[in-house]
Amino acid sequence: MISKDLNLPFTKEEILEITNKYPTPFYIYDEKMILENARKMKMIFKDLPGFKNYFAVKALPNPFILKILKEEGFGADCSSLPELILAEKAGMTGESIMMTSNDTPAEEFIKAKELGAYINLDDISHIDYLEKHAGLPEIICFRYNPGPLKGGNSFIGKPEEAKFGFSRDQLFEGYRILRDKGIKRFGMHTMVASNELNPTYFIETARILFELIVEISKELDISFEFVNLGGGIGIPYRPDQEPVPLETVAKGIKEIYDSTITANKLNSLKVFLECGRLVTGPYGYLVSQVRHLKHTYKDYVGLDSCMANLMRPGIYGAYHHITVLGKEKETAIHKYDVTGSLCENNDKFAIDRFLPEVEIGDLIVIHDTGAHGHSMGFNYNGKLRSAELLLREDGNVLQIRRAETIDDYFRTLDFEALKKFK
Amino acid sequence: MISKDLNLPFTKEEILEITNKYPTPFYIYDEKMILENARKMKMIFKDLPGFKNYFAVKALPNPFILKILKEEGFGADCSSLPELILAEKAGMTGESIMMTSNDTPAEEFIKAKELGAYINLDDISHIDYLEKHAGLPEIICFRYNPGPLKGGNSFIGKPEEAKFGFSRDQLFEGYRILRDKGIKRFGMHTMVASNELNPTYFIETARILFELIVEISKELDISFEFVNLGGGIGIPYRPDQEPVPLETVAKGIKEIYDSTITANKLNSLKVFLECGRLVTGPYGYLVSQVRHLKHTYKDYVGLDSCMANLMRPGIYGAYHHITVLGKEKETAIHKYDVTGSLCENNDKFAIDRFLPEVEIGDLIVIHDTGAHGHSMGFNYNGKLRSAELLLREDGNVLQIRRAETIDDYFRTLDFEALKKFK
Repeated sequence: MISKDLNLPFTKEEILEITNKYPTPFYIYDEKMILENARKMKMIFKDLPGFKNYFAVKALPNPFILKILKEEGFGADCSSLPELILAEKAGMTGESIMMTSNDTPAEEFIKAKELGAYINLDDISHIDYLEKHAGLPEIICFRYNPGPLKGGNSFIGKPEEAKFGFSRDQLFEGYRILRDKGIKRFGMHTMVASNELNPTYFIETARILFELIVEISKELDISFEFVNLGGGIGIPYRPDQEPVPLETVAKGIKEIYDSTITANKLNSLKVFLECGRLVTGPYGYLVSQVRHLKHTYKDYVGLDSCMANLMRPGIYGAYHHITVLGKEKETAIHKYDVTGSLCENNDKFAIDRFLPEVEIGDLIVIHDTGAHGHSMGFNYNGKLRSAELLLREDGNVLQIRRAETIDDYFRTLDFEALKKFK
Repeated sequence: MISKDLNLPFTKEEILEITNKYPTPFYIYDEKMILENARKMKMIFKDLPGFKNYFAVKALPNPFILKILKEEGFGADCSSLPELILAEKAGMTGESIMMTSNDTPAEEFIKAKELGAYINLDDISHIDYLEKHAGLPEIICFRYNPGPLKGGNSFIGKPEEAKFGFSRDQLFEGYRILRDKGIKRFGMHTMVASNELNPTYFIETARILFELIVEISKELDISFEFVNLGGGIGIPYRPDQEPVPLETVAKGIKEIYDSTITANKLNSLKVFLECGRLVTGPYGYLVSQVRHLKHTYKDYVGLDSCMANLMRPGIYGAYHHITVLGKEKETAIHKYDVTGSLCENNDKFAIDRFLPEVEIGDLIVIHDTGAHGHSMGFNYNGKLRSAELLLREDGNVLQIRRAETIDDYFRTLDFEALKKFK
């Protein structure tokens, strides 16, 4: 069963024309589908009070993308000072930004407070740290780490191994401290999965948080204004995988909301998510050209991109679907390793992948690279990160990030000082 | 048995003084030990004809380091255009540079030829490609991939899974093609291991290459000028590991040289290595400060550095020794996860590591980061790469790379275009 949409928003001819102006490799993002997807998400979750998705900026930290998403009412989930600045540059401020950081430096808290962002604390010790460096804001959120879950919940992995969040006891203690300091507005957050495809996971996460909110609200006599259920909604990277049935997730969360928050007559609670991959992941494509073919003990397709452009296959062994432009209808009869030019053996986009017969010059599309693609790139081996293009709704192409140059790579070096160096 | 040298070239007081000018985190490299180590290496391998080590630039692509090594007679092993330029900026040209690239773009061949570098081809198809784009140089080297090694060699892993090099048959064919094109000077290279600690591995690699050189020299009636036995000599990252006994390696290689090259009355063959990690790895230190301590289901030390500064623990689970400056004599009684601030759970420098009791503000030294440290850093999550400092032989400190700034991170974005973007 093929459930994944493998249709491309561009033809080989269109990409060839683009390469006249922007040489490969480049990322190209499909604005139309990103918008449609964002609207669909809002529609599906509309019955959750005050629903808002805070786009995880680290997935695709491009301010043009953030600006598009802002127009659709999305917020930004930021976890560093540069990400806060990107959100600001995209026109987001105030409660459209959630700052979820860990091991947080003072300057991030200061900037987040200045922007009026929701500040989500990762640790109980950060209450004092925030107060000392930036002052306490009106509303504060804590990140919960459910830990070993003695009650048992097979859907959530091993959060006790994760560095993030407060323990359960610390949550009670932390909210009590804030209440006693006069804080009146509260949020709660968790995020323990990544790229999860099982809808039950997200419903169970909501149950844990909603039940905890009921308990803490009563025990401390405080009122929560929002809950952020985190992100982690996966996408089908493999053609035979199913997307997460978001309607099931939305319905499940709403039912638990009603049986916990509503049934206990708590104030209405805004429900947030912070999905990144789900929003843009499937609508980004890394386009490369075949530079070499090599036949030794295996057959290799050598691209003009490498791990510097897309790290996930090399470091996680992650699957990304690969197609050859213009050969979509041809049978995948030839087994290849699809490699880059990094001097590192794990620089492979695919191992033992069946593709149609590939020729030098073919344009290769690596799918589902609209999240955690460009943003994870490095400069190992002196490799440079590529440009990002936006395929507009009207069919035009806009460069939204230029390619790195060698001068960029050398920017932190002082060659004049080198000349004098002995 | 503690065999690893854990002595630091600096005291806590000296580092504190450095932080007045260069805030943490930063890398600091020990020039004196790099020089001593380079000289020791030359001495140990001096009986190999024309011995030269080509420093693997990707390990530490800093031109100041390259300039130091050049003074010691080291060459540069480059595998990208920016690396070739770095070697050139450090004053290296001609046969002091070896260009070992794979899936190579034309511009790299052109630049290597222009510099007069040794060009090491990764694939038989690159003969035509090189000739077409840059013309054939006077001397050409091929990279050999021994493949499944039907004869059996348990010391070398699974080279048939590696994307690099020529098969055995292709070597014969390739050298024949070159000979028939009038090329008279030849080299041969292999490199199939990484961070290997068993000396037998390197001796067996030499045996494979020397025997092959004898065979090909006779069959094709050509003469080899050099052999490059590759790099991959590991370093003891763990305190209980032994360094590779280089004297054993040198002696073993010389014996095989004599019993193959000399015994068969071949012309004298220069013997090269391309070690990077061995040369600088143990003499680089990532110095960070403790920003936060956190106690949840585990105890966490939160540093002001993160995976962006040092990737090996996060992506490979690699061990790096960690000490607390000024607490070297204290007992390691407390178990910590040592983390950074990246919003990614694998952003940990160590898991369940016993250290002395750590306090906020302590200076933490991550050892053996003089190779594949700074060079592998990324900007995920908007994190910035740190400065590199050189501790000179005279005790002075020189900044040899400045820290990245947020402006650097934003450099490929056009914020003016963003303002007009709708």
